[in-house]
Amino acid sequence: MNIIEIIEKKKNGEVLTKDELKFAFYGYLEDKIPDYQMSSLLMAICLKGMNTEETFALTDLFLHSGDVLDLSSLKGPKADKHSTGGVGDKTTMIIGPMVASCGVMVPKMSGRGLGHTGGTIDKLESIPSFRTNLTEEEFIAQVEDIGFAVTAQTKNLTPLDKKIYALRDVTGTTESIPLIASSIMSKKIAGGADCIVIDVKVGKGALIKTMPDAVKLSQLMEAIGVFYQRKVRTVITPMDTPLGRCVGNRLEVLEAIDLLNGKGDENLRNLCIQLASHMVSMAKEIDYDEAKKEVLESLEDGRAYQKFLEFVKKQGGKLESLSIDAKKWEIHSSQDGVIEAIDALQIGELAVSLGAGRLNKEDVIDPCAGIVLNCKVGDSVSKGDILATLYSNKDVAIEMVVIEDLFQIK
Amino acid sequence: MNIIEIIEKKKNGEVLTKDELKFAFYGYLEDKIPDYQMSSLLMAICLKGMNTEETFALTDLFLHSGDVLDLSSLKGPKADKHSTGGVGDKTTMIIGPMVASCGVMVPKMSGRGLGHTGGTIDKLESIPSFRTNLTEEEFIAQVEDIGFAVTAQTKNLTPLDKKIYALRDVTGTTESIPLIASSIMSKKIAGGADCIVIDVKVGKGALIKTMPDAVKLSQLMEAIGVFYQRKVRTVITPMDTPLGRCVGNRLEVLEAIDLLNGKGDENLRNLCIQLASHMVSMAKEIDYDEAKKEVLESLEDGRAYQKFLEFVKKQGGKLESLSIDAKKWEIHSSQDGVIEAIDALQIGELAVSLGAGRLNKEDVIDPCAGIVLNCKVGDSVSKGDILATLYSNKDVAIEMVVIEDLFQIK
Repeated sequence: MNIIEIIEKKKNGEVLTKDELKFAFYGYLEDKIPDYQMSSLLMAICLKGMNTEETFALTDLFLHSGDVLDLSSLKGPKADKHSTGGVGDKTTMIIGPMVASCGVMVPKMSGRGLGHTGGTIDKLESIPSFRTNLTEEEFIAQVEDIGFAVTAQTKNLTPLDKKIYALRDVTGTTESIPLIASSIMSKKIAGGADCIVIDVKVGKGALIKTMPDAVKLSQLMEAIGVFYQRKVRTVITPMDTPLGRCVGNRLEVLEAIDLLNGKGDENLRNLCIQLASHMVSMAKEIDYDEAKKEVLESLEDGRAYQKFLEFVKKQGGKLESLSIDAKKWEIHSSQDGVIEAIDALQIGELAVSLGAGRLNKEDVIDPCAGIVLNCKVGDSVSKGDILATLYSNKDVAIEMVVIEDLFQIK
Repeated sequence: MNIIEIIEKKKNGEVLTKDELKFAFYGYLEDKIPDYQMSSLLMAICLKGMNTEETFALTDLFLHSGDVLDLSSLKGPKADKHSTGGVGDKTTMIIGPMVASCGVMVPKMSGRGLGHTGGTIDKLESIPSFRTNLTEEEFIAQVEDIGFAVTAQTKNLTPLDKKIYALRDVTGTTESIPLIASSIMSKKIAGGADCIVIDVKVGKGALIKTMPDAVKLSQLMEAIGVFYQRKVRTVITPMDTPLGRCVGNRLEVLEAIDLLNGKGDENLRNLCIQLASHMVSMAKEIDYDEAKKEVLESLEDGRAYQKFLEFVKKQGGKLESLSIDAKKWEIHSSQDGVIEAIDALQIGELAVSLGAGRLNKEDVIDPCAGIVLNCKVGDSVSKGDILATLYSNKDVAIEMVVIEDLFQIK
């Protein structure tokens, strides 16, 4: 077998066998195939596609490139969720307690943020003393004990996916449905859960720009789920505007607490209820509406919030010291009108520049930095109204923020 | 400007500006853009194409990435030819003397062979004492004196093309009409000739597989010629079977001598006359048929051969010691039948394995190694007839040669 022939085969739109994919991708993982040949193959895959068999084969190669978490000691169904990436997405810290308080285990491996979207691990670490580096034993014990635990990936899960993802990120090859499906599903399968709900974000601020692509990706991931005998449901949700009102790590924790206490943004609340209901429905093998009733009850009678407090305490977090220690700037509307759009991508990038995220892996995050939106799409505003409040410990040149880039008012 | 945005733009089928191409390609030449990003861009170009403006822009970037030969001291039209690569193609050493003996200057820069096709420089170096490293001054003086000279590229012509070509070779991105057109035309323009004939090879053994692609490439190269005010004509010729009867360096020199003496293969003779006639026609601004008459005369009255002898002597070559010092093997037909095909690619690769070519730049060539075909397509053969004679100084495992791979007999 020869890597150039494999690249040319895909370039000509032919189907690659699992052996050919293995030769190329494991060769790359083992540094036998150089970056420049893999990036050429990835671009050919982006433009010529892969069929279902190829996507299954690649998922399997990703999955078996590293460790697979064994959660068999946890008796009963285990639910997991994944989002294809959004700005202001703090759903994990809300859904985990909701689902766990309905009696379904949620063992959650999470990542850090890179670029304009945040990561759950960074958000939780903005809680003083919160531990995100649970060992596998601690992780499993906590799920057994209280039903919910979050840890940064400790084991060597899907190392091939990590290596390929880093290359795709810098070679213009991120937008490929089969590559996205293999990447997500191999990670979820390796994570050990048997009921998986995936929130496919679609829109300008998301990796998937159009509805037909979102549907294709959803179907492909569900098919992979069937292949591995996991229950998989997908929901497609818009990602044009940030999710909720807060963007930035500690600000998002505070918003999650508000939501668990019956306050907060309606869109965020509805999405959390929807995702949690699917998880409970799959895990308990009950109807979605029945599951939704349980989820709503857990939220309304305070059990979900109590579970959140239990979860934070168990992982060492101290919620009493959750103050926002940062300088404040207000952004005012320069005109009368109606908010037609809030650009998720631009808001995400502004939050990063305030200190809430990292552009390079080495960047240190400011837990207090971020943005609180004071309006949502559809709101009427008058000239001078506060549109948003920015928090940062940097000497931010607030005049540099172009309001028109963030808010479309007409 | 950002290389990832440029890659994504081409991936989405958009047109790149000259500034964007410059950013990407000169960035690559200057090692600011890594291999893996350039190969991803090249694959996107292969699959999404480039329009005429982009191809012109890229040709110009290649051209001005290095030196451009100044032949203005040579008064009068200067003709050059190029072939897109073939097995057994020894036309340069035949055409050069033909055209020069018709009074048209032929200043020829040539390359070495790599892979299954040979290079003119390697062929000439199989003549004992032949010098291929003429300085620019020697080169120009010889063209002025006898009308024909061949030298390996001494100046730093189109270094960007060399770097890109080497990357394309190992990333499955050789088959792209705009990339081939830019590569060939930038080299020819940099070489300084004002009348250029290009032999576009089409077929299984060639880079261009189909007639429509050959036509597209031809038209594109002619358009680039117009842009640079050079006369360019293209001929499209088949490359399924080797050109002529001999493959291998000194064997091909002997075949060229035969041909200049009125003997030898008809296909080879016809192609040489056709290419030479176009060169003379363009340079003298006369009708093709008139030019062909002159070319035929130069061949028939021995002037072309005398010019060849003059050329070899001038560059130090000693024709009297042109013996083939190698072991001989004969390949016999295993059946009665008619030769339906002789596979140029397989013959080329066999010649390399006998020692006639190099697979790596460091390989040393055996001037005597090669293949003499004893039959051509359409010939009837009987079981036991000699199909070809192989020459090598290696301990060749002749039993390993699969006759059916080389000759299709039915």
